[in-house]
Amino acid sequence: MMRLMQYPELAQPQALLGFIERCVERGLSGFDHADIYGAGECEAHFGAALQLRPALREQVQLIGKADIVPAAQDSSRWQVKHYNTRADYLTQAVEGSLKRLGVERLDGFLLHRPDPLLRVDEVARALDDLVGSGKIGWLGVSNAELLHCQTLARELPLRCNQIELSLQAQDAAWDGRLHAMESEGVHVLAWSPMGGGRFGPELLRALDEVGAALNATANQVALAWLRELPGKPVPILGSLRWERIEEALLGAELQLDTQTWFYLAQAARGHEVA
Amino acid sequence: MMRLMQYPELAQPQALLGFIERCVERGLSGFDHADIYGAGECEAHFGAALQLRPALREQVQLIGKADIVPAAQDSSRWQVKHYNTRADYLTQAVEGSLKRLGVERLDGFLLHRPDPLLRVDEVARALDDLVGSGKIGWLGVSNAELLHCQTLARELPLRCNQIELSLQAQDAAWDGRLHAMESEGVHVLAWSPMGGGRFGPELLRALDEVGAALNATANQVALAWLRELPGKPVPILGSLRWERIEEALLGAELQLDTQTWFYLAQAARGHEVA
Amino acid sequence: MMRLMQYPELAQPQALLGFIERCVERGLSGFDHADIYGAGECEAHFGAALQLRPALREQVQLIGKADIVPAAQDSSRWQVKHYNTRADYLTQAVEGSLKRLGVERLDGFLLHRPDPLLRVDEVARALDDLVGSGKIGWLGVSNAELLHCQTLARELPLRCNQIELSLQAQDAAWDGRLHAMESEGVHVLAWSPMGGGRFGPELLRALDEVGAALNATANQVALAWLRELPGKPVPILGSLRWERIEEALLGAELQLDTQTWFYLAQAARGHEVA
Repeated sequence: MMRLMQYPELAQPQALLGFIERCVERGLSGFDHADIYGAGECEAHFGAALQLRPALREQVQLIGKADIVPAAQDSSRWQVKHYNTRADYLTQAVEGSLKRLGVERLDGFLLHRPDPLLRVDEVARALDDLVGSGKIGWLGVSNAELLHCQTLARELPLRCNQIELSLQAQDAAWDGRLHAMESEGVHVLAWSPMGGGRFGPELLRALDEVGAALNATANQVALAWLRELPGKPVPILGSLRWERIEEALLGAELQLDTQTWFYLAQAARGHEVA
Repeated sequence: MMRLMQYPELAQPQALLGFIERCVERGLSGFDHADIYGAGECEAHFGAALQLRPALREQVQLIGKADIVPAAQDSSRWQVKHYNTRADYLTQAVEGSLKRLGVERLDGFLLHRPDPLLRVDEVARALDDLVGSGKIGWLGVSNAELLHCQTLARELPLRCNQIELSLQAQDAAWDGRLHAMESEGVHVLAWSPMGGGRFGPELLRALDEVGAALNATANQVALAWLRELPGKPVPILGSLRWERIEEALLGAELQLDTQTWFYLAQAARGHEVA
Repeated sequence: MMRLMQYPELAQPQALLGFIERCVERGLSGFDHADIYGAGECEAHFGAALQLRPALREQVQLIGKADIVPAAQDSSRWQVKHYNTRADYLTQAVEGSLKRLGVERLDGFLLHRPDPLLRVDEVARALDDLVGSGKIGWLGVSNAELLHCQTLARELPLRCNQIELSLQAQDAAWDGRLHAMESEGVHVLAWSPMGGGRFGPELLRALDEVGAALNATANQVALAWLRELPGKPVPILGSLRWERIEEALLGAELQLDTQTWFYLAQAARGHEVA
């Protein structure tokens, strides 16, 4: 929901409600939020839509994230973008998200960025309390290195790590990190699954070529490529245009065979495997 | 045996048999194969030699590797070099090697390259079955990162990791990887132990200098340098010229003292230690 | 005590004794030695000062380090700077430090640099023996990668790792290494905490700015920045000028809030956080 405020067709709560309902009908029940998306407006707008049909709450999975403080939100004299994982900050951030969303519980909650100042004990206690009080369902991290996952997982049950992962950002598939996270029981979610529009010409050509062969679109092929990875990473779709979502849904059963997967990987990397 | 087909003097099975017998007599009983070496011809030729004296089988240790599919072997429309670690592929690959070698068992079997699509459970089951059926003795990996070793070792008994390691490729000695693999119980085998002929002039000069001091050849010194590393990595000799093998054998007892080891490391790295 | 011989005002044992006493009075009881500092002269000079007032011994914590052999100390024909972690070498090195310092025990002992040839079993046995005989109190490493710490910690109780860490060398704070070492129970000591005078102009400006806001000096701010990191790294002050030490002591209670910490980190890194 990062770019929710950028879609005029979703600007009215009633329209957004229709969008959410369409998603749920099609099996897309997870909605990825963060306190900083639209400086809180994305959550508030989503909440306004939910209020129009409260029974919908039980049909959606709401994921929240916090710990990034944008420079504009920093009230200190330094006005510096920073992270904050102090217990009181995280607790207030979760409560802020709950209030904006108009719900009593985030189904999942992720630390948005790995904070170099994170105190493991303090965070574990704060998040345990939030889970215990029912304000959070399960826990995860985002943009975390394997070492962060391993350190935190000693103290907290981590369900997922949301990282950049796509044909354009596939190192974690080759150096053992995806396998290691799978082995740790940490599910990987892929943000920017289409590479944020930065796919190069050779890769775009290969995606078209594969799409033509499989009767699929380039985007469907790029998403299918992700699904073959260890642990079956789930893409976080950035676009909220319904045609894009429909496109992804229609391609959800697409499977790539091994050769096709490597053909695309090679096109993105610019060289064949060793 | 990667370059077996490049030696005219070993082109006849009888000649190759003599070579194998000489190796065994001198204590070199391990032979490093892979299904892709010579596109299978290396294994087949080795098998033809073994057939001439079947009793020799019990005196040799045969190591096989698989999972790389060269572009020329890819029958898909993409004709792409790729890896394949699906259960049926690995099982057939091992059976193909057994058939070409004319034996009933590979003493050791390595995954040739770390496959980003490797399914740990599936591979563990397939290799367990191959071990259980007696077609494979023990298991290992090749070119694997530490994370791959650690992840696989949770499910499979890994005996070794065959990696590039030489004076020219010595990072793993400094960043803790060799120590970590030793600690995991994974024995390191060193391929390209002479750096594939890419040793620079300063290193070559130092090898000659040390060789002159120790009454040894440069190659003997380079191999002795490897033997001092944690876990005593075993070199995979690339050359099958008997003089080269004889040279290595004659230098097998050569030991370098600490100062000499660092002198060579420094010559290869271009700077002294910190 | 690395640069002890560079301070004319501490050149007389009596003067150095006064310095040590001043440190102890102010709560600075740990003194960081190594056999190579001043080629042994630093330890010997410190020992000469201690001899003037033997009762002081019980009030100080003496840390020793060994395993680096400078080229000038290498008696081999190669005259090469190298590391040595053989049992007999380490034992003699510790005994040499004890003799020069004129004491019967090093409170702590660190392997100075990670030795690629280190034999874990042999080192564990040698250091165990030194601890058992009372010649060493506790053990640590210096300049070790996480893999080195993890491998050694399986065999030895490692109390600390002394690494370069400062605003100028802060990667370990971001990639999870500091958290991982804290999680392993390895306390981090920071050498070159002021970046060895290599702080860039933007960082120096930010340190001054923060110092002005907090009524502190730039050096006090840089040290306070370190103290906020996971595990509260302790700085190894390089300077032995009393004014510098006094400055650090006067700033010992200074705490930086999260925003200030990130403001300084950003000034050093040249970009804001992601």
